[in-house]
Amino acid sequence: MTPDEFRALGYKIIDWIAEYRETVEPRRVMSHEAPGAVRAKLPASAPEEPEPFERILADFERIVVPGITHWNHPSFFAYFPSNTSLSAVLGDLLASGLGVQCMSWQTSPAGTELEEAVMDWLRQMLGLSESFRGCIQDTSSNATFVAMLCARERATDDARLSGGLQSIAAPLTVYTSEQAHSSVEKAVLLAGIGQEQFRTIETDGQYAMRVDALRARLEEDVRAGKKPCAIVATVGTTATTASDPLVPIAKLAREYGAWLHVDAAMAGIAMIAPECREHWTGIEEVDSIAVDPHKWLGTGMHLSAYYVRDASYLTRVMSTQPHYLRTAADDKVTNFRDWGISLGRRFRALKLWCLLREQGTSGLVARIRRDLANAKWLEAEVRKTEGWEVVAPVPFQTVCVRHVPRGLRDEEAINAHNLAWADRINEGGKAYLTSTVVAGRRIVRVSVGSEATELSHVKKLWALMQETAGT
Amino acid sequence: MTPDEFRALGYKIIDWIAEYRETVEPRRVMSHEAPGAVRAKLPASAPEEPEPFERILADFERIVVPGITHWNHPSFFAYFPSNTSLSAVLGDLLASGLGVQCMSWQTSPAGTELEEAVMDWLRQMLGLSESFRGCIQDTSSNATFVAMLCARERATDDARLSGGLQSIAAPLTVYTSEQAHSSVEKAVLLAGIGQEQFRTIETDGQYAMRVDALRARLEEDVRAGKKPCAIVATVGTTATTASDPLVPIAKLAREYGAWLHVDAAMAGIAMIAPECREHWTGIEEVDSIAVDPHKWLGTGMHLSAYYVRDASYLTRVMSTQPHYLRTAADDKVTNFRDWGISLGRRFRALKLWCLLREQGTSGLVARIRRDLANAKWLEAEVRKTEGWEVVAPVPFQTVCVRHVPRGLRDEEAINAHNLAWADRINEGGKAYLTSTVVAGRRIVRVSVGSEATELSHVKKLWALMQETAGT
Ligand SMILES: Cc1ncc(COP(=O)(O)O)c(C=O)c1O
Ligand SMILES: Cc1ncc(COP(=O)(O)O)c(C=O)c1O
Repeated sequence: MTPDEFRALGYKIIDWIAEYRETVEPRRVMSHEAPGAVRAKLPASAPEEPEPFERILADFERIVVPGITHWNHPSFFAYFPSNTSLSAVLGDLLASGLGVQCMSWQTSPAGTELEEAVMDWLRQMLGLSESFRGCIQDTSSNATFVAMLCARERATDDARLSGGLQSIAAPLTVYTSEQAHSSVEKAVLLAGIGQEQFRTIETDGQYAMRVDALRARLEEDVRAGKKPCAIVATVGTTATTASDPLVPIAKLAREYGAWLHVDAAMAGIAMIAPECREHWTGIEEVDSIAVDPHKWLGTGMHLSAYYVRDASYLTRVMSTQPHYLRTAADDKVTNFRDWGISLGRRFRALKLWCLLREQGTSGLVARIRRDLANAKWLEAEVRKTEGWEVVAPVPFQTVCVRHVPRGLRDEEAINAHNLAWADRINEGGKAYLTSTVVAGRRIVRVSVGSEATELSHVKKLWALMQETAGT
Repeated sequence: MTPDEFRALGYKIIDWIAEYRETVEPRRVMSHEAPGAVRAKLPASAPEEPEPFERILADFERIVVPGITHWNHPSFFAYFPSNTSLSAVLGDLLASGLGVQCMSWQTSPAGTELEEAVMDWLRQMLGLSESFRGCIQDTSSNATFVAMLCARERATDDARLSGGLQSIAAPLTVYTSEQAHSSVEKAVLLAGIGQEQFRTIETDGQYAMRVDALRARLEEDVRAGKKPCAIVATVGTTATTASDPLVPIAKLAREYGAWLHVDAAMAGIAMIAPECREHWTGIEEVDSIAVDPHKWLGTGMHLSAYYVRDASYLTRVMSTQPHYLRTAADDKVTNFRDWGISLGRRFRALKLWCLLREQGTSGLVARIRRDLANAKWLEAEVRKTEGWEVVAPVPFQTVCVRHVPRGLRDEEAINAHNLAWADRINEGGKAYLTSTVVAGRRIVRVSVGSEATELSHVKKLWALMQETAGT
């Protein structure tokens, strides 16, 4: 492709994206394609000869777009949002155009230094003190895994440099709440710690970790000769956005010498609005934090911000110094290849930089507040409507609801009813939301926070919910 | 940003990229910025108020671009290439515009099915049989780590579901060559296996793993009560692009029940040219393979192709099934969230799809052959020039050289001389290459394969090398 062809095609794609964002609303949110339908439209092999890009674009429209579930749709209320703001689209385009690989400072000094700068900007926006240093990880799953690896090595005095986990005396244990995200258990198991040493602590009536239960479990384990290695607390759990009490948990972590990691993947972003920070009182006492700009904030995948109090653990565990990677600058600079699992690194800081500047902190805070208020509106409506229940506190942007048809008493039938109306909404294509099970009950999560979602869309959703659930 | 503003700015950025690619040649390859210089030009905090995007673009030119080391420069001969072809830039732009998150089939069926399709296209291009299934991992480092986790779990009968690595009877051991990439040792250590159980096997005169040494080490370990867990063979090592003999290694892997992973991060891409496949004879006998489209092929970061013979190991180790992630389609489809560490997944298959179609396999093969031929040209020139040595075979696109000034005998002085001329070239900005140490000797690697590199650039480099080394 010549640069001139690129210009013409690039304009077309820019136009396509602009139009897509303008016209996303009438589209079905969840794709209606059947399993295998997209694949069936694709050839079995790559073409031998080059194809005109116009044909690729036509196939994109014909084959790919119908198979898209529209995360940037104003009626996307499923999971947690994964917003890609237009300024981040442009920032990422610049990164692709440059096509640089930022593993080391020398392989693009701006890649490293812009990442240091924007991670520090975001730190301040989140209300974190200067004692935290940040870097980009792919995802929160990844960040939590990295935290578990650092915790494991701290607890074993760097056993990786000798016999590894295979040689340690006291078995390591890890603690999290039963409401923690599945990535926590996955990280613990992948770290080699084993399910038998993984403790899921009960939660209270608000789905926050019970500190008394945590303390009891820690005591019991230590009595049994185990070594508490890490505690993972959540700020904003996936099911109901509950937050664990960091102050007493941090006290226990210190007492037992355990690494304290905070998974604030989604709700951490709310902390750019100072009034939300009560939900992470105690954050200054933790060892590491994961917060995802690729969810609510708007950078698009993959950009998880990982903050650590003492970066030397991270770099000791992650660094390698083969001859072929050494550069003349190594002792004066940060080499982010030593801050994570991957060697190669895309220039991801650019899109966050573009987003933060184009929106300004005031713009981003205003959007987060809009979403918080929209969730509050829905919460109030649900509360005052007969047959409907808000089943968990609404500290952030997710409202967990349940509909109980008049006269229906059987728990299983109520569960089935709630799964059914949520599925009907999704199948209908006018909105997309997800259900889950909390404390044995099927609930439906309304996660507000797609960038395009205004109060009007939440109102439409609420009408649709009532209609579909049959009230 | 409104869609209309996006249009106008998007055109500008498309123009910028086109012009950048047209005018990259006169730029210095390696950035000349001093440590801290970029950071010093950036404000200490994010702006409170939104800024006009024009100002961001101006700062991009003023602050970022001077801090860029140009990986898409025709005189980039360092490390291994990380090409981002213009068709991949456009494909990735479409992915950003859609902004979808492909963790599950249902969250965008086209995301999953296009990934299945293009991974299968690439499989065929690489000459791999249908017994391999592919998925996208972030990087080869990641893919190798994933392989080690699967190997560990296979060797321990899924110990993660009980006491983990903390509870197993016989210590696991892992084997690779002393020329393997640093990511292999990192993966083994992160997997909890420990350095004492990590074996680096000697290489032969061509820097390929010595099978007799591997066998001896396996025997010795088994006698000592250890359990061989994995062997990592390399096709195209980082220092000299040597390849380990897969046929006898696979035989040993089978004999000792070890997982065999092949790290073909860079050289794997050469296999799209059938004449290169002699270098991975035996590949059908291995358990997993990593090949990086984000290096030589041209997709840009992060796109590593990971092929496995039996995907059930991978999905068993990586899958989690919390209620909030279950979808109605789960038993009929592939959910790629169960194929790696991360939950969230960008739609990365799009850029590979665009690249493969826009270039056609014939176009890509022609480019790979051009690079192989250019390397051969340089090899021949170096061989026939007095004072210069080709210090390793040139099976692919990297030529390892050394200059020995007339009369200089002292090995340390020769090493210092070679480091010095390579650094002088890098500092001069006209080309960028990296040196390393092999068998105690400092060598300079000329890695040919930037998309823009033609024979003329290799010729210019060779003249510069001779001039700079002082012949
Ligand atoms: C042989 C080999 N394996 C693995 C890697 C790591 O690549 P990545 O950046 O994709 O992790 C490299 C990098 O150059 C390599 O040469
Ligand atoms: C609380 C929490 N932690 C972690 C994750 C995983 O996020 P990622 O896709 O970045 O790995 C999620 C995803 O929704 C989450 O809700």
